Amino acid sequence: MRRSIATVSLSGTLRDKLQAIAAARFDGIELFEPDFTTARMSAAEMRQRCDDLGLKVELFQPFRDFEGMPQAAFERSLARAEVKFDLMEALGCPMVLVCSNTSPLALPDAQLAAEQLHQLAERAARRNLRIGFEALAWGRHVNKWRQAWDIVQRADHPHLGLIVDSFHTASLKDSPQGIADVGEKLFFVQMADAPLMGLDVIDWARHHRNFPGQGQFDVVGFFEQCVRAGYSGPLSLEIFNDVFRATPNRRIAVDAMRSLLWLEGEVRHRLEQAPAEDAAAARALQSQVLFDPPPVPAFQGISFIEFAVDGTHAENLGQLLRTLGFSFAGRHRSKAVTLFRQGGVNLVLNQQATPAARERFSLQGPSVCALGLRTDDPAGALNRATALQSARYDAPTGTGEQRLPSIVAPGGMVIHFVDDALGESGLFEKDFILEAEAADGGAGLQSLDHLAVGLTPDRLDTWVLFCRAVLGLDAGDAVKFADPFGLIRSTGMADAARRLRLVLNMSMSERTRMAQAAQASGGVGVQHIAFASADLLASVARLKAAGVRLVPISDNYYDDLPTRFELDAAFVERLRAAGVLFDRSPQGDYLHAYTEGYAGSGFFFELVQRLGAYDGYGAVNAPARMASQAQEEQQ
Amino acid sequence: MRRSIATVSLSGTLRDKLQAIAAARFDGIELFEPDFTTARMSAAEMRQRCDDLGLKVELFQPFRDFEGMPQAAFERSLARAEVKFDLMEALGCPMVLVCSNTSPLALPDAQLAAEQLHQLAERAARRNLRIGFEALAWGRHVNKWRQAWDIVQRADHPHLGLIVDSFHTASLKDSPQGIADVGEKLFFVQMADAPLMGLDVIDWARHHRNFPGQGQFDVVGFFEQCVRAGYSGPLSLEIFNDVFRATPNRRIAVDAMRSLLWLEGEVRHRLEQAPAEDAAAARALQSQVLFDPPPVPAFQGISFIEFAVDGTHAENLGQLLRTLGFSFAGRHRSKAVTLFRQGGVNLVLNQQATPAARERFSLQGPSVCALGLRTDDPAGALNRATALQSARYDAPTGTGEQRLPSIVAPGGMVIHFVDDALGESGLFEKDFILEAEAADGGAGLQSLDHLAVGLTPDRLDTWVLFCRAVLGLDAGDAVKFADPFGLIRSTGMADAARRLRLVLNMSMSERTRMAQAAQASGGVGVQHIAFASADLLASVARLKAAGVRLVPISDNYYDDLPTRFELDAAFVERLRAAGVLFDRSPQGDYLHAYTEGYAGSGFFFELVQRLGAYDGYGAVNAPARMASQAQEEQQ
Repeated sequence: MRRSIATVSLSGTLRDKLQAIAAARFDGIELFEPDFTTARMSAAEMRQRCDDLGLKVELFQPFRDFEGMPQAAFERSLARAEVKFDLMEALGCPMVLVCSNTSPLALPDAQLAAEQLHQLAERAARRNLRIGFEALAWGRHVNKWRQAWDIVQRADHPHLGLIVDSFHTASLKDSPQGIADVGEKLFFVQMADAPLMGLDVIDWARHHRNFPGQGQFDVVGFFEQCVRAGYSGPLSLEIFNDVFRATPNRRIAVDAMRSLLWLEGEVRHRLEQAPAEDAAAARALQSQVLFDPPPVPAFQGISFIEFAVDGTHAENLGQLLRTLGFSFAGRHRSKAVTLFRQGGVNLVLNQQATPAARERFSLQGPSVCALGLRTDDPAGALNRATALQSARYDAPTGTGEQRLPSIVAPGGMVIHFVDDALGESGLFEKDFILEAEAADGGAGLQSLDHLAVGLTPDRLDTWVLFCRAVLGLDAGDAVKFADPFGLIRSTGMADAARRLRLVLNMSMSERTRMAQAAQASGGVGVQHIAFASADLLASVARLKAAGVRLVPISDNYYDDLPTRFELDAAFVERLRAAGVLFDRSPQGDYLHAYTEGYAGSGFFFELVQRLGAYDGYGAVNAPARMASQAQEEQQ
Repeated sequence: MRRSIATVSLSGTLRDKLQAIAAARFDGIELFEPDFTTARMSAAEMRQRCDDLGLKVELFQPFRDFEGMPQAAFERSLARAEVKFDLMEALGCPMVLVCSNTSPLALPDAQLAAEQLHQLAERAARRNLRIGFEALAWGRHVNKWRQAWDIVQRADHPHLGLIVDSFHTASLKDSPQGIADVGEKLFFVQMADAPLMGLDVIDWARHHRNFPGQGQFDVVGFFEQCVRAGYSGPLSLEIFNDVFRATPNRRIAVDAMRSLLWLEGEVRHRLEQAPAEDAAAARALQSQVLFDPPPVPAFQGISFIEFAVDGTHAENLGQLLRTLGFSFAGRHRSKAVTLFRQGGVNLVLNQQATPAARERFSLQGPSVCALGLRTDDPAGALNRATALQSARYDAPTGTGEQRLPSIVAPGGMVIHFVDDALGESGLFEKDFILEAEAADGGAGLQSLDHLAVGLTPDRLDTWVLFCRAVLGLDAGDAVKFADPFGLIRSTGMADAARRLRLVLNMSMSERTRMAQAAQASGGVGVQHIAFASADLLASVARLKAAGVRLVPISDNYYDDLPTRFELDAAFVERLRAAGVLFDRSPQGDYLHAYTEGYAGSGFFFELVQRLGAYDGYGAVNAPARMASQAQEEQQ
C-alpha cells in the first residue's frame, strides 16, 4: 500500500518537509494548500522536486465550503475550483479533498449538495481529476461519514468518491462500521490518532492529533474497515499537532512511517485471526499488500541495566550499589566493565569501554546507556524493531564474547535483546569473570519493578509509539502531578504480563528538576530505577542501617494519610519512621521510597513493594518526593 | 480590603511562596493543603513564619466530598474534619473551605447536605472556627452558587457561610446577580479570570485560570456583587495555571497584586458612576475601603520610539531609516543621541547614553529600549502606573533638559509619558539641536500604526494585565497562525480611540524566529514597528526605488488571492508587483508589507494602510511573511 503524509504534519519550509518525507521513505504527500501558498516555489518546480525525491502529490487539500450553497456562492466556488484544478494539473495531482461545508450560508439539503458536487465532478472529469468528499467533524450539516457517503451516492459520478478520516469519525464517537461496504468509491483514507480530551472538536483537531499508536482512538478498527472495503492506498496521515510543528521534522517523519507500518501490521494480524467463515477478511488479505512485520516478542523482564561511567563514578556508584545491598559480581574479561547483582537484578558499570557508553558519558555524565531485555526470541525482537524503523546497533564484540542483537531506542539508549534461555546470569558467564554469590541476600531487593524515563515534550509521543509498536507495550492512563516548579505528566507502559514496565515522564515546565535532567540528557534519559522488595519496611531498615539516605518525607504527609485511607495507626507510624510512602487502589496497595539523587547526575533509585494487584506507580505521592527534593536543595 | 492569594497560585516550595507573597505586599494567604502536606515545616513553624512575614493564614482549603453523604461516609468525614480542625488551630487559621461534593456517593438531597453542614459548623464553633461552603463548577449535585447559598440558609448556623469564586460562576455562564443579597453570610471571595475555552470545566479550572484582567470573564461585575453584599475582605486569588506554576514566583506575585488593585479600582469606579438613587452603591462605597488609583490617562499616540545602539548601529540603522524616508532631524545637546523623523514619527537612536539604553544594548544588541506615549496628563499616568505596582524610572537628566515621568514596563523597556501639549516636536526642542524640516515628505509614512512585542510564554499574561491595568488598553481576540517552526499566538491591545496599538505575540514553539528573538531579549522585545501610509503602493514604490528590501511574497499567494476575495485583477497584479499583502474584514481592508530584518537583530518594520475601519493586524498573512523569512534564511 502506498504511504503518504500531509505536509501540515511536519515542521519547516515546504522544501524541508519534502526532503524529510522522502527520507522517511514515503511514497507520496497530501499537499496542504497553505504550505504551497506561502512557498516560493512554482507548481512546476514543486512537481519536479517531488519527482526528484520519488514522491507523488496524491492529494490537494482542503477545498472548503463548497457543497449545499445558494446559487451565487456556488458559482463563485466553481470558478474558484477551476483555479485550483489548474494548479493541480500543474502539480500532477489527481485528486482534491472537498471537506464538508462549515459556512453559515450552507443549506441543510443533501440533494442540493449532491447536485453541486456532481457538477464539480463533471468539471473535474474534463481534466481527468477526481473529487474526494469528506465529512468534517464540525461540518455545518454534514459531519458523519455516512452523511457524506449518502451525498456521494446521490451525486453518482465516477469522478466523485468518499474520503474518510479516523479523527473526524472517532472524535464524534461515531462508528467506522460500514465503511467496509463503501467499496471502490472509497477514494482516500486519512489516519490520525489523538488523546481523549474534553476539548471542543475544532481545537482538538487543529492542535492535538497524533500518529496512529500515539493516542487513544481505535485506529486499527477504523483502518480494518477501509481494508475490508478493498481500499488499496494511499494510506495517508493528516496530523495537526502543535508539538510536531515545533520539532525537527526528520524525527517526526520517522515516527510517522513507524505508525503506518505498525497500523498495517496490526490490521493484517486481525484479518489473519479472523474466523474461516469471514470470507471478506481473506479477500482483503489477498488483494492488499499490507506490511508484515515479525510479531511482538514476549519479554520476560529486564536482564540488565548498564551505566556509562568513568573511573571515579565506577568507584562511587559501585559504593552506592553496595550500600543498597548489591554485591560485586564480576569483571569483564577484556573491558573496563563491572557487574553488580542483587536478587534477580544485574547492574553493569561500563567505564566507556564501548562507543555507546563513551558517547553517552561524554554527553550526560554518569547515566544509563543501555538496557538488556530478556526474550525467548532475540532475533525476532531485533527483526521487528528494524522492520519498524529502529536503527540496529552493532556493538564491537571481542573474540568469543556474547553477541547480542541490539537496537538504538529514540534518543540514543541502546536496547539489547537477551536470550531468556541464558537465565539470570548465563549472559555474563561467557564475558565476565564472576565472583561467588554473596551469602547475605543484600537488602532484599529482588527484582526490577520499573524504569522511569524522563523525556522532553517533543519526545513523549515518539516514545509511546516506540514502546507500543516495537516493544508491544500498552499505555496506561496519563496522570498529571505537581512538582514545585511545574506539572509533570506521567504514562505507564507495560506488557500484558507486567514483566516489563516503563514509566514515561514529561515535564510541562522547563524549570522542574525532571525537565532539566531530560534536557541535559538530550531529551531522553533514565530518571530513576525502581527495585522491588517483598518486605519494603524490612529492606528500608537494612538500607538505612547501611547508611543509605532516603528522600525525607514531611511529617505532615503522615498526619494526613489516615484521613485518606483507613489504616492502622501503628502501621502509619511504621511508615513514618521508615519514611515510606503509601498508595492504595481498588486492586491493592503500594509502598515506596526514594533514594537521594546520585551525586553529579539526575538519577536516583526507588524501592517498591506491590501488594495485591496494584498496577500503578504511586503518582499521587510524587509531589511529596519532588517537594522534598526541592526543599533539600534549598538547605 | 485585605488581600490574599492561594499558595497554589505560585511556583516554588512553600517557603518560597510565602516570601514571594509577602514581598508583593499581600496581607494573607489561602493555604492549599497539598502545599502543606508536602512541606517539611510543622504547623507551628508555618504559623511563626507567616507571623514573621506579616501574613495571616486566612483560609485552609479544600475540604472535599463532605455534604450529602450516606451516614457511614459522613461519620468518617467528621473524624477527618477534626484532624483538619486541629491543624487549623495550630496554624491560627480561622476558616476552612468546603467545596461541593464530587463523589459518586453523594446524594441529591439539599436538606441532608444542610443538616450535615450544620453538624460540621457546630463542631467548628466549639473551636471558634468557621466553615465556608462553595459550589464547585463540577460538583455532583451542587455546582451553582445559588444552590450552595440555599443549603447554607437551610443549615442556618452562625459558623457556616457562603464562599463564592468567580471562576466557578463564570465558567458555567451563571450570573453573579444576587450575590449582593447574601450579605454578611458571604464569608470569603475568591477571584479568578480565564480565557474562554471550549475545554471541559475541570481541565479549564485546573490549568488555565489567570488573574483578574488577564482573561475574558466579567470579573468586575462579579466582584461588584460581592462589594454590594457588604463584603469587606479578604479579597483573594485562587489561580491554577500551568504557566504560573512554571514561572519564577516573584514576577507572578506582582501580577497577582496588580490584578487585585485594578479590580478594586474598577469596582470603585463603577460604584462611583452609579446613579444617585442607587443607595446600595453609595453604602458599599462608604463601608468598604476599595483601592483608589488615579484614572487611566487618555493617550494621543506614540511620541517616539528609542533604540539602544552603539556607534556602528547608529550609523547602519540611521542609514536604513534614511532609505525608509526618514530624515535626520537633530542631535541631543549633551548626549550621543540622534533623532530621525518622518510625518509624525519620531525615532531616537541612543548610543548607550543612558543607563537603560546601556543595559538594553548589552543584553540584546540593537533594540527598542524605550517608548514615549503622548498624554495630556503625564503625572497622572505615572501615578496610576506606580499605584498599580509599576516601577518608576528616573532617568538622569542634564541641567535644563526635559524631564519625563517614566516607568519600567515588565521585562525592562522604559515607558515615558510625554505631555501632549508639547505637540509632535516640542519635546525635542529643548534637548536637541534640530535640523530644518526635510522638504520631500520622505516615503509618505505618516504615523505609527502599531508596535509588535514578542514575548516568551511566561510573559504574555503579565503584559495583557499591564496593558489593561496600567495603560487602559482593551484586548482583542487572540488569533493563532503558523510559522514554519510552530504556532504563534497574537493578541492586539488598543485604547478605545485606537491611538495606541500594541500587538502581543507569543510563540508556542521554541524554534520559531519570534521565540528565539523573544528569548534573546530576556522575554520581552519589540519585534517590529508598523508605520502607516495613506497610499501604501506609492510608498512601497518609493521605498523600493530607494533600495529598501521587502520580504518577498510567493507568487502563489497572489494566484490564490482572487479565490479568497472579489478583487479587480489589475489590483491584484499591482499588489503582486509591489509584494504587498492584502486582508479584508467586514469593516475594511488592510494592505501591508514587511522590510527584511535589520542585520544583527530580530526586528524589522511593517508598512501598512488601513482602509475603512479595518481593526486588525493582517494576522492571516503572517504565515506568508514567516514562511518567506524562513526560506530566505535557507538560501
